[in-house]
Amino acid sequence: MISAKRLKERIEKLSTISEAKEGFSGVTRRALTKEDKEAQLLVKSWMEEAGMHVRLDSAGNLIGRKEGLNIADKPIVIGSHIDSVENGGKFDGTIGVIGGIEVVQHMVEQGVKATRPLEVIAFCEEEGSRFQSGGLFGSQAMVGRISARDLDVQDRNGITRREALDRFGLNPNTVITDDVIRDHGDIALYLEMHIEQGPILESSGVPIGIVSHITGVTVFNIIIEGESNHAGTTPMNMRRDALAGACELKLALEKITNEYGTPAVSNVGRMEVFPGGVNIIPGKVTMSIDIRDVSKDRCEGILEKLKSFANEMSAKRGLAIQFIEKTRVQQAKCSEEVIAIAKSEAKNMNIKYLDMISGAGHDAQLIVNICDIGMIFVRSRGGSHNPDEVASIDDISLGTNLLYRVVLHYMR
Amino acid sequence: MISAKRLKERIEKLSTISEAKEGFSGVTRRALTKEDKEAQLLVKSWMEEAGMHVRLDSAGNLIGRKEGLNIADKPIVIGSHIDSVENGGKFDGTIGVIGGIEVVQHMVEQGVKATRPLEVIAFCEEEGSRFQSGGLFGSQAMVGRISARDLDVQDRNGITRREALDRFGLNPNTVITDDVIRDHGDIALYLEMHIEQGPILESSGVPIGIVSHITGVTVFNIIIEGESNHAGTTPMNMRRDALAGACELKLALEKITNEYGTPAVSNVGRMEVFPGGVNIIPGKVTMSIDIRDVSKDRCEGILEKLKSFANEMSAKRGLAIQFIEKTRVQQAKCSEEVIAIAKSEAKNMNIKYLDMISGAGHDAQLIVNICDIGMIFVRSRGGSHNPDEVASIDDISLGTNLLYRVVLHYMR
Repeated sequence: MISAKRLKERIEKLSTISEAKEGFSGVTRRALTKEDKEAQLLVKSWMEEAGMHVRLDSAGNLIGRKEGLNIADKPIVIGSHIDSVENGGKFDGTIGVIGGIEVVQHMVEQGVKATRPLEVIAFCEEEGSRFQSGGLFGSQAMVGRISARDLDVQDRNGITRREALDRFGLNPNTVITDDVIRDHGDIALYLEMHIEQGPILESSGVPIGIVSHITGVTVFNIIIEGESNHAGTTPMNMRRDALAGACELKLALEKITNEYGTPAVSNVGRMEVFPGGVNIIPGKVTMSIDIRDVSKDRCEGILEKLKSFANEMSAKRGLAIQFIEKTRVQQAKCSEEVIAIAKSEAKNMNIKYLDMISGAGHDAQLIVNICDIGMIFVRSRGGSHNPDEVASIDDISLGTNLLYRVVLHYMR
Repeated sequence: MISAKRLKERIEKLSTISEAKEGFSGVTRRALTKEDKEAQLLVKSWMEEAGMHVRLDSAGNLIGRKEGLNIADKPIVIGSHIDSVENGGKFDGTIGVIGGIEVVQHMVEQGVKATRPLEVIAFCEEEGSRFQSGGLFGSQAMVGRISARDLDVQDRNGITRREALDRFGLNPNTVITDDVIRDHGDIALYLEMHIEQGPILESSGVPIGIVSHITGVTVFNIIIEGESNHAGTTPMNMRRDALAGACELKLALEKITNEYGTPAVSNVGRMEVFPGGVNIIPGKVTMSIDIRDVSKDRCEGILEKLKSFANEMSAKRGLAIQFIEKTRVQQAKCSEEVIAIAKSEAKNMNIKYLDMISGAGHDAQLIVNICDIGMIFVRSRGGSHNPDEVASIDDISLGTNLLYRVVLHYMR
């Protein structure tokens, strides 16, 4: 068995490295800060303790590598991240990196002679909590999806990512090419263990999830325009109330998503009402929609139904409605082989598990562009991005043991 | 006939006094500013030209008075306001004051010996566009509804109303008592002419409205609390989405109001969504509701139906919903006698008119506490509070002539 004690100590120790913020009880460790540097140095020391050679690539990805017996073989990579959201928890991301190191260290301690190289990667800025971007910076860089423009985004103090990389001791000019990018075939398999960021495992009383898909994410902004008027003097039947239209859209999206059924989910997380006076009929509303499903066709289907509802409703209410695409992240499918091995090992270990899909994005979703992927979820109470998120050390140990056994399969 | 030319010249001249604001094409003349002072001096000169003695009371109300033959009689008062919203139009308020002066001046020019005193009042800060309050400051003061606390409200530069009154050359300590307050019986009748602030006259092709009621206004804040969660990882059936509840409430309010029918109107003008992340299920929404009707019972009925809907809906969705009362302005009824006289005179003049209710608040709504009131609406294109609001000089002349004839009735 892997060392639950060591896992626990490392998770606790890493969680003490946090930006001090008034009123925040959780962990705040944003990418490329001095806290991130301190955390990387700590993780680096653990990687070295596990016998790995450690490097930092130009995108700020911390990479530990232990060579295998067959020098020419491509590595198995275990990854996740150690940056956090503001006032986040101590398990999101960290258990994947610390669990990965534990897998390598345990293998060494067990005297297992790995045939392939093994890598553990702490990806840079998975959360996107520092710069105004969608996160997943390090994994995007690794699959060649970072452009010069992505280096110009600023944090709230006006520091660009380019400057932040430079201050972190990296050369921003090499991010886009050089020592970061990996091609198809450069990695044999990518594995990631993460806390479940939803309530399913917790509410089912099951410790482990074996992930089949990561959902695609379709994000649009919607602008609804009607006419601002005095709310006291404009009769109900002479109004073009943008908020009434926005509310109909929100409820229609909910209804359509429910009709599609699991695993489809959707959300309206932002809604701004203009001009915003109590006695003024809203002339304009902007809102976001976020639609997720494992099938691109189903995402598109939900979006199309919503647009068709919007067309009819806007005609009835005299509104103008625009849909503006913001993000379309593609769905990712986990390797059938990895899923089968994980399930078989879970049965051998007598662990209860659920087939799951990931509704949240992960670095695996980008790495799937260059190799097969697999993901293991660990039950978490309190979701994620939350100072109160809790994954028990027993569950994390089960997950790490399962990860170890899956890796062993590829070492024979 | 009154002088349309003089009305037009005075409206145009008054509209040139405005705070200069980048990007604003309309009139900005907020209460107790130097522009307000300049406008008052101009209006004072017109009042004097019409033979009135002019004073400024301690609440900033500009009051012109012409004595009548019967010294002991109580005055007929014609009032409105000359302050504006930011970037407003040139007709809202001003036509009531300039029209009132025209009535007096015309009476003098016609050699009519008024039996009663006549007053024209430009009330201070009707719009409430400078200080954080509901407006109607001068008329509230006149009926004794201003407390010391109302003098502590600040404008956006942190200047209190007390300081502003002082800088305007007034003694803030006398606002609450002394030379401002009038009691029941101190005024014989209050009349106000105002542009219609809605689209009814314009869309009906009718120049004049004779007002029967000013609606009551019931304003509540509603706080809806659910649970914030990750929108990708929380299944649809495990959510407590505060925004979904808010949208149901908004649409229910619209439906209930439509069921009550004219003249009931309602509005949700403000809605704030927290925490406001695209991929976060809203845990909290705050929203305003504004309900108006000429009957207090109907306002209460709409509110009660909405609360009962909220109860059922909140149970279904697992939300907590609070209703917090902000304002309840009472309904005001215009004098039946004044309405009858106005209609009879309109017929004599061969003017088309509509029976109307006022959905917007006016100083008359407070003055009704101490005397009978009457209101005349003039057709306006573009509503009000709008640089593009337009009342034609022909319509304003019709309204002023009607006002003149109503006043004459009380002078015989």
